[in-house]
Amino acid sequence: MTDGRTAPPAAIVVIGATGDLAHRKLYPALAALAAEGRLSTIAVIGSARTVMSDDDFTGRVRDAVESAADGYGWSALEKCATFRYVAGAVGDPQVIEDLTTVLDECARDGLTDGNHLYYLATIPQLFEPALTALGEAGLFDESEGFRRIVIEKPFGRDLESARELNRIVLSHTAEHQVYRIDHYLAKDTVQNILALRFANAIFEPLWNRRYVDDVQITVAEPLGVGHRGTFYEQSGALRDILQNHVLQVLALTAMEPPAAFSAGSIRDEKVKLLRSIRPLDVHDLSERVVRGQYAAGHLDGEDVAGYRDEEGVAADSTVETYLALRIEIDNWRWAGVPVYLRTGKRLPKRVTEVALQFKEVPHLALPGEVESLEPNSMVLRIQPDEGICLFFGAKVPGSSFDVRTVSMDFNYGDTFDERSRDAYERLLLDVLLGDPTLFIRADEIDQSWQVVQPLIDGFPLGEVPIRFYDAGTWGPDSADDLFAEQDAHWRTP
Amino acid sequence: MTDGRTAPPAAIVVIGATGDLAHRKLYPALAALAAEGRLSTIAVIGSARTVMSDDDFTGRVRDAVESAADGYGWSALEKCATFRYVAGAVGDPQVIEDLTTVLDECARDGLTDGNHLYYLATIPQLFEPALTALGEAGLFDESEGFRRIVIEKPFGRDLESARELNRIVLSHTAEHQVYRIDHYLAKDTVQNILALRFANAIFEPLWNRRYVDDVQITVAEPLGVGHRGTFYEQSGALRDILQNHVLQVLALTAMEPPAAFSAGSIRDEKVKLLRSIRPLDVHDLSERVVRGQYAAGHLDGEDVAGYRDEEGVAADSTVETYLALRIEIDNWRWAGVPVYLRTGKRLPKRVTEVALQFKEVPHLALPGEVESLEPNSMVLRIQPDEGICLFFGAKVPGSSFDVRTVSMDFNYGDTFDERSRDAYERLLLDVLLGDPTLFIRADEIDQSWQVVQPLIDGFPLGEVPIRFYDAGTWGPDSADDLFAEQDAHWRTP
Repeated sequence: MTDGRTAPPAAIVVIGATGDLAHRKLYPALAALAAEGRLSTIAVIGSARTVMSDDDFTGRVRDAVESAADGYGWSALEKCATFRYVAGAVGDPQVIEDLTTVLDECARDGLTDGNHLYYLATIPQLFEPALTALGEAGLFDESEGFRRIVIEKPFGRDLESARELNRIVLSHTAEHQVYRIDHYLAKDTVQNILALRFANAIFEPLWNRRYVDDVQITVAEPLGVGHRGTFYEQSGALRDILQNHVLQVLALTAMEPPAAFSAGSIRDEKVKLLRSIRPLDVHDLSERVVRGQYAAGHLDGEDVAGYRDEEGVAADSTVETYLALRIEIDNWRWAGVPVYLRTGKRLPKRVTEVALQFKEVPHLALPGEVESLEPNSMVLRIQPDEGICLFFGAKVPGSSFDVRTVSMDFNYGDTFDERSRDAYERLLLDVLLGDPTLFIRADEIDQSWQVVQPLIDGFPLGEVPIRFYDAGTWGPDSADDLFAEQDAHWRTP
Repeated sequence: MTDGRTAPPAAIVVIGATGDLAHRKLYPALAALAAEGRLSTIAVIGSARTVMSDDDFTGRVRDAVESAADGYGWSALEKCATFRYVAGAVGDPQVIEDLTTVLDECARDGLTDGNHLYYLATIPQLFEPALTALGEAGLFDESEGFRRIVIEKPFGRDLESARELNRIVLSHTAEHQVYRIDHYLAKDTVQNILALRFANAIFEPLWNRRYVDDVQITVAEPLGVGHRGTFYEQSGALRDILQNHVLQVLALTAMEPPAAFSAGSIRDEKVKLLRSIRPLDVHDLSERVVRGQYAAGHLDGEDVAGYRDEEGVAADSTVETYLALRIEIDNWRWAGVPVYLRTGKRLPKRVTEVALQFKEVPHLALPGEVESLEPNSMVLRIQPDEGICLFFGAKVPGSSFDVRTVSMDFNYGDTFDERSRDAYERLLLDVLLGDPTLFIRADEIDQSWQVVQPLIDGFPLGEVPIRFYDAGTWGPDSADDLFAEQDAHWRTP
């Protein structure tokens, strides 16, 4: 992959240059890359409606870098970057003309080697006009250098809109030019799922239906919707977390070994896994899916409001802030192993984890007490407290042969001195270097929407009524009913 | 097994009542059992050559209890125990007559329910006369209560003498009356080998030739022979550690699952494993066995003498203080997996451990650096720092896909509040309760001597010359040559 390599010169066109994402993530990430010597010359070309000069824009970027959490690297960025700004609405022909001029100037000045990276850091409604305008102006033509386009999530809001967006993107570009972001993939611990499985000889033999009883993936956070109420009303837990992050983590956890560790091979296997998920039936969701919405409750020592009382939320909203489902994977490795997925807001703690619950021992003939012996499990903690925990039975000291569940731990932070790179720093560098491994391919996007489309169709039909749960609890009680067929239960992270 | 149960009343006849073992181990163990309420009434009947009264003997036991490391329980022991003493040589008919009288008195006084336990806490040369005298006097007859006999190691000094000793024992008793001690088996971490393997579903699938590259068992100590030089000259590492402790740990590590966790089933499997060890050829030891003897060296900041300069050791002694060998186990589970055994004195640290080295991943297609990636391994630390450690590869944080070996740990002491019972406390209780699981059966003793007899025969022939190693090192350099056929090496504990 991309370690130790320096990005080639390029123009980075930020559509939505005054937005939150650009300020909080992109500019600090560029500065960090510059500070590490990973950039050669670049031209950062901002575009947004606000009218300002190149100098104004430069000042904004500097403010963004210096006010970031571990904001550093401005002096390094200043040395390698030229800042330009183009004001106006992205679909406006004048904007495209101005942008083309600036790009040409930057290329002529030897800043970019003719390479262009377009970053759509804007609201989804502008994806289409931006793509169309840029495409029709010929700005994706790669004869003079690379032309790459980064598209932020959400990529569509259902299967149909995602397909339409893919159609538009690919009518102006080829797939190899498109970098669809799911920043979860840039997390070391998410990539470590592959390292753990395929760089070790002892885990993969256990990683299948013969030994695994069930798989549980949890993405929980204690936060409510905060000021994002208006956005969240259009999204819900399904679009915000499940369709993208959860399914990506599932794909890496359950996929077959790739033929090579290349973008193509890894993405092939992820798509194959997503295709193996048994399709949900829109009329048979009630025993497989639980939707919840947080009511007022108590969390971290504070009283917190219910979802319907949040700013920008309808008083009778039926948008889910919690979603849990049981799915099956129809392939040789996982047949008969239920997979439980859940995500929610206002849950007791922030945690993303993958838990493999193993089957009971085939024959337990111990003479002592085994009451406190749970089946083995292995937990991959994606965040926070990144690490791995293995639960197994050990003999309790003393005269009997009692066995009790104990754990062994691996903690990322205690083990490695290396800095975990911020997701956007990693992703920007990958785009500049042309490594699409950690981005979502068109067929992956399509397949993940296919998986969740029956939910999107079923929810308005009342197939899965909203259950309320008190903020600060692990979701609706009925989430436990998903285990009806199994002698298992949700792990408490 | 024996947890929570109280021992029945019994007479405990200590042959060698004034000896080191009795004072350091048996009396403190009895007191600890009394303090925990695990004893009903007992009669402790000491016998040795020293002439003394019952009161003198009582005082000696009290001194022994109170001067033990965590010496406690004298007042509890005093409440449930009666102390008697019989002076004289164990083969003397008068001693047997006196002993019979005392045993009868104790039974008549309702102290013992007619149960007798004979503990041979004496030098091995007295085993035979003691057994013969007790046996011929009818003291092993079980019509009035149980008659059990505890035999300390060493049990024989070669195959022939062990067989002769077994013959003598079993000419006077039945096997179920005989408790041959290997105190290693009383260690929680040794028993945990079975718990780990058979109370968990995830380890046993890996525990075979398909995944294991080699097995290494190490019993190392930094101590020299100290004041035991005269004894050690007759023993060497082979008889002192290898034939008993090392082979017992190997048997538990490598045996098949027992039909039940009963003494019979477990010992059946241990014997079967010992039988599966490919016999060593007395004329083909040179590439499989390394013998060493420590020379002067430096250890823990001190200069220490060589073995030949120790008290009681011949100036030209060729007794080994280090022994390493490579064996094969000819069965379906382990065929082709070399097993490396080593034990030594004056090694850098005190450690007993079992290490399973796993094979390399069948196909490693990672794009990043894997130079610091070792094959997986699992280490069971028997002592000290009791615990388990698993070594595996994890992704190094950062932009590349480098993988490095990391470890996850389980530590016994950090996990359990329960006290680990002293070996002799555990073993005495088991004998009183009639549980022979942690004792060595006649056929086990026989089989373990069969395993090592080719070494005993070959050493005098000069098949395995003594190599000197500096005290404080991991033994002779030539020990590395045992791995000649394999891309592996000794683990450094």
